[in-house]
Amino acid sequence: MEYRKIKDEDKDEGAAGDDIESLRNKSISAPISNVATLGGESNDRSKWKRNLGKNLENEGVTEDNRLSTTLDEVSVYPIPAALYLVKNLLQYYIFAYVDAPGYQILKNLNIISTGVLYQMILKRKLSEIQWAAFILLCAGCTTAQLNPSSDHVLQTPYQGWIMAIVMALLSGFAGVYTEAIIKKRPSRNINVQNFWLYVFGMVFNAVAILIQDFDAVMNKGFFHGYSLITVLMILNHALSGIAVSMVMKYADNIVKVYATSVAMLLTAIVSVFLFGFHLSLAFFLGSTVVSVSVYLHSIGKLTRQR
Amino acid sequence: MEYRKIKDEDKDEGAAGDDIESLRNKSISAPISNVATLGGESNDRSKWKRNLGKNLENEGVTEDNRLSTTLDEVSVYPIPAALYLVKNLLQYYIFAYVDAPGYQILKNLNIISTGVLYQMILKRKLSEIQWAAFILLCAGCTTAQLNPSSDHVLQTPYQGWIMAIVMALLSGFAGVYTEAIIKKRPSRNINVQNFWLYVFGMVFNAVAILIQDFDAVMNKGFFHGYSLITVLMILNHALSGIAVSMVMKYADNIVKVYATSVAMLLTAIVSVFLFGFHLSLAFFLGSTVVSVSVYLHSIGKLTRQR
Repeated sequence: MEYRKIKDEDKDEGAAGDDIESLRNKSISAPISNVATLGGESNDRSKWKRNLGKNLENEGVTEDNRLSTTLDEVSVYPIPAALYLVKNLLQYYIFAYVDAPGYQILKNLNIISTGVLYQMILKRKLSEIQWAAFILLCAGCTTAQLNPSSDHVLQTPYQGWIMAIVMALLSGFAGVYTEAIIKKRPSRNINVQNFWLYVFGMVFNAVAILIQDFDAVMNKGFFHGYSLITVLMILNHALSGIAVSMVMKYADNIVKVYATSVAMLLTAIVSVFLFGFHLSLAFFLGSTVVSVSVYLHSIGKLTRQR
Repeated sequence: MEYRKIKDEDKDEGAAGDDIESLRNKSISAPISNVATLGGESNDRSKWKRNLGKNLENEGVTEDNRLSTTLDEVSVYPIPAALYLVKNLLQYYIFAYVDAPGYQILKNLNIISTGVLYQMILKRKLSEIQWAAFILLCAGCTTAQLNPSSDHVLQTPYQGWIMAIVMALLSGFAGVYTEAIIKKRPSRNINVQNFWLYVFGMVFNAVAILIQDFDAVMNKGFFHGYSLITVLMILNHALSGIAVSMVMKYADNIVKVYATSVAMLLTAIVSVFLFGFHLSLAFFLGSTVVSVSVYLHSIGKLTRQR
């Protein structure tokens, strides 16, 4: 309840202080610090009132939903694309040190890195109980994924650990930075924000294709090997990408991490009915810990420090 | 801090309201309800002042440390002894349905039953966070004990589950009842209280020996098979029994459950150095969850409902 109220204030203050027009002359090197003040104490509502008329023009092309942009706005969009590119490339190299189930387990480090970077970069403080809940979320998700060969991950060589930690930091930073970009202009249309995020994603991936797979694409064509399943997976990824951007805009990375974790558990439960999956005792224990974590996160909001 | 204060008040009020003399004429059938009022609102300190002189006589034989007792005091002591006897006998029968590692896992149900009975019988309310911590303690201890064959426990037949639940309830009830007995007379010497607890334990066990092992004891003698290890184990059990009774008198069953759980984790860590034990990933995850649980229990005290 209280948290909801804080978030609404954020949006109002954002609409007042961070409108495109008012930011046009600001330094392009300070996008994050602008966002960090979203939850600040400013009670200056006059700008908000001035912009009210503008926000009501929600039909046709307006300043908020037009595709054209400024260097100031667009200059930060390549950053998450570049971070995800590096992280995705690392993903190929880490398998020299870790097997696939081990990698699934190490991926849970994302939860901790997202929490740390969320607090550091967005300056939104998590309460002590919420931090406890976050550690439990990480431990619970890992427990739920345990299988008899999981202990192999403890024999991961230090290069594997370093890569896993770097990947978790890159992924966490990219997520938090995307939230900062999207939240920086709360009145800006989300589809336009997605457009610019994906444009740079496409550019970087095109470069990666040119470097890594140029011959294969030239000989067999770009769509070689595409099946119905491939197309469905692309659609699925595109839709979940849009959903994630909405979570970034209207909620935050913490909600995203919880949603992803609960989705993992629900996927396992659905797999019982669809594929006759066998749920382990570890899954029940991990699910219990994740459930308590969700509960603690929600009651932690009420006592959170501001 | 606040909890400590409440506890101190309990002791004072106990010393005032539940002195042996003043209880001598009370009904012997209401030992628990007396204890349940220990945390009550009574501010009547006059009796406390009257008894102050008596409490200071702490040398030689006094009313508090003399071994002789009244029917009122002693009548409740056989109850925990009987409960533990039934629980220990059930332990032989449950192995028809569960293997030893499975039983270790089911034993963690004790944690939940102790929490439920503690709140129901001693009427000390655990806060919401403390309940969350208690569920985590149970899940974390079980996780720490996971091994590749743990999933067998999910195939336990319903008779095994029922016996495990009954054993957990008996053990939880015996623990909480012992705390009620010991706390009922806060000024009574703890060694005397232990004496009477163990007298009935010995009587019940003597009966069990007569019924189950009469021939063996007659033919081979009572001490047949005793080795140095046996004697050391008896000493160890005796000392830990005295330690537990002190926890019951000066702390409570919740502290006992946490202490037992943390001791289990420490035993595993010590075993790494002594016996070259191999710690599993599940152990690290379970230990993490238990650690967060201990932390949450302690901050839960500050916000606990009274």
